[in-house]
Amino acid sequence: MPLPRVSDRRPLAVTSGDPAGIGPDLVLGLPRSQPGAPLVVLGDLDVLQARAEQLRLEVRLRAWQPGDRASGEALSVWHCPAGANVIAGQPDPATARGTLTLLDRAIDGCLDGTFAGMVTAPLSKAVICEGADASFTGHTEYLAQRSGIERVVMMLATPALRVALATTHLPLREVADAINADDLSATLRILHKDLRERFSVPHPRIMVLGLNPHAGESGHLGREELDVIIPVLDALRAEGMQLSGPLPADTAFTPKHLAQQDAVLAMYHDQGLPVLKYSGFGEAINITLGLPFVRTSVDHGTAFDLAGSGRASHRSLQAATRWAMTLAGQ
Amino acid sequence: MPLPRVSDRRPLAVTSGDPAGIGPDLVLGLPRSQPGAPLVVLGDLDVLQARAEQLRLEVRLRAWQPGDRASGEALSVWHCPAGANVIAGQPDPATARGTLTLLDRAIDGCLDGTFAGMVTAPLSKAVICEGADASFTGHTEYLAQRSGIERVVMMLATPALRVALATTHLPLREVADAINADDLSATLRILHKDLRERFSVPHPRIMVLGLNPHAGESGHLGREELDVIIPVLDALRAEGMQLSGPLPADTAFTPKHLAQQDAVLAMYHDQGLPVLKYSGFGEAINITLGLPFVRTSVDHGTAFDLAGSGRASHRSLQAATRWAMTLAGQ
Repeated sequence: MPLPRVSDRRPLAVTSGDPAGIGPDLVLGLPRSQPGAPLVVLGDLDVLQARAEQLRLEVRLRAWQPGDRASGEALSVWHCPAGANVIAGQPDPATARGTLTLLDRAIDGCLDGTFAGMVTAPLSKAVICEGADASFTGHTEYLAQRSGIERVVMMLATPALRVALATTHLPLREVADAINADDLSATLRILHKDLRERFSVPHPRIMVLGLNPHAGESGHLGREELDVIIPVLDALRAEGMQLSGPLPADTAFTPKHLAQQDAVLAMYHDQGLPVLKYSGFGEAINITLGLPFVRTSVDHGTAFDLAGSGRASHRSLQAATRWAMTLAGQ
Repeated sequence: MPLPRVSDRRPLAVTSGDPAGIGPDLVLGLPRSQPGAPLVVLGDLDVLQARAEQLRLEVRLRAWQPGDRASGEALSVWHCPAGANVIAGQPDPATARGTLTLLDRAIDGCLDGTFAGMVTAPLSKAVICEGADASFTGHTEYLAQRSGIERVVMMLATPALRVALATTHLPLREVADAINADDLSATLRILHKDLRERFSVPHPRIMVLGLNPHAGESGHLGREELDVIIPVLDALRAEGMQLSGPLPADTAFTPKHLAQQDAVLAMYHDQGLPVLKYSGFGEAINITLGLPFVRTSVDHGTAFDLAGSGRASHRSLQAATRWAMTLAGQ
């Protein structure tokens, strides 16, 4: 599928996520943090109005429809009913269908060119599974499926680091068996392609971590480096990719190595993300690579206990919005 | 075994490690970085003299024997022949026996009260296995065995963080099965005891990570938290330990959580050490807990390619020496 290169002023869709979580609180902060940006929030106008009053925020909301302009002082909202009476902090499966509809509209709008990309506020997997779709495993998988894409890559980014993952949400005991040549090659190809096309890095340099401690220490601490990772890297190098590694994870994240890389590929979740979040807590965001449109996300959950309190941090949504605008060429 | 509380001026032993590596380079820097400190270097006087000349360092070396004083302007050296002609950068199995003898003397001296503790420069497992002891798996294991200690705990520390490990050098696919209640309890007891007795933390607060991503997400991403980790933490809390967790590794290393902890227990190597080394590269050191004496170590290897070049970083050995002096009450 060709990758649309966007440099116009088409708006970005911002889904407000679970209406009882902090998503509504966060999107209400966008007019102040991104004044004049072409953003369209997908959410329930009544929920947003009520949350603004609860937070004592002065935010002008304006109903938006495809075809309208999206910039200006008011926050443009594409109204999608929540489907139930919403109380901040009290998740309700009756809102699940409405929350999925936010995603559906954003995806369809990205695919038909209405939106230049999308930013997602958090939803609750448990609420969605209970109230709408028992097979829902996460935003990323849902986006891939609805877009007809077989494989996407999860990348997290802070101002200091970019870390993509070869495997994502697997029990640790299943990780080693999930590292195979086909999947690893496909992941590296997506990462390489998106670094070139989305991040405007003409010759991406990717640092690949080993699976085992000390990257297996020549087979003494595991053989996956010798049997899988090194052959894959060699094959892709022969095609011209600039790949370093497999490196031990505990020496890779050092200034000397990081200075020469555009992204790190970690083999699994807890190998790469603790250091990424340590490097920029509060500003880490999630980017889905391999989709036919730009998608970024906050790196935190619904935080029901903070909804409506005014104590939720806006930094991750602000960063996710800035990244989406940059990646979409705005 | 009672823990000796040391507050005298007994010297610390500093083993110079593989004579062809950077260990000799590093110990020669101690008189300048730790002037007047009661340190005794274990190494080959001739190798050290030759290395000082190669590095054009003006260091006065003085032969030391048990019973001698160790402080002063000269570097006290307990001479142990390397066993072969040593060329910087050229490892030689003929030196393996001599390198082990450095460790043996340091251990015996710690056990008999000659030394207040020990600091180790790097050696090469491959050289030791080939030249002296095919079963040698590492400094830490050797120290435990020679001291008659069944279990030790590896902790790494920087000025910002302290991370202990529940498992150390295992292939990733073996980690999940290695997490069991007996070992985890024993590790936490050692960590708790040494934080109190060595680190002078009267009521240690330990943050324990989960094994799986998101700490298993209530069993959706693995059951070890429910089946093993949570029951162990509950049992030890009932004894009065202050334990938090199991926490997701990627949210644990954030200022909010770290501010309330004296140490983090990671379940495995690459879950805890990348962030630790990122937090203080060059100043990370290794501390062995559970021994009847203080032992710290550099966190890097022999770096044969840098031996004799003057380009090796002295920061880790300096930090290891400062930590050992502090932990030994000096």
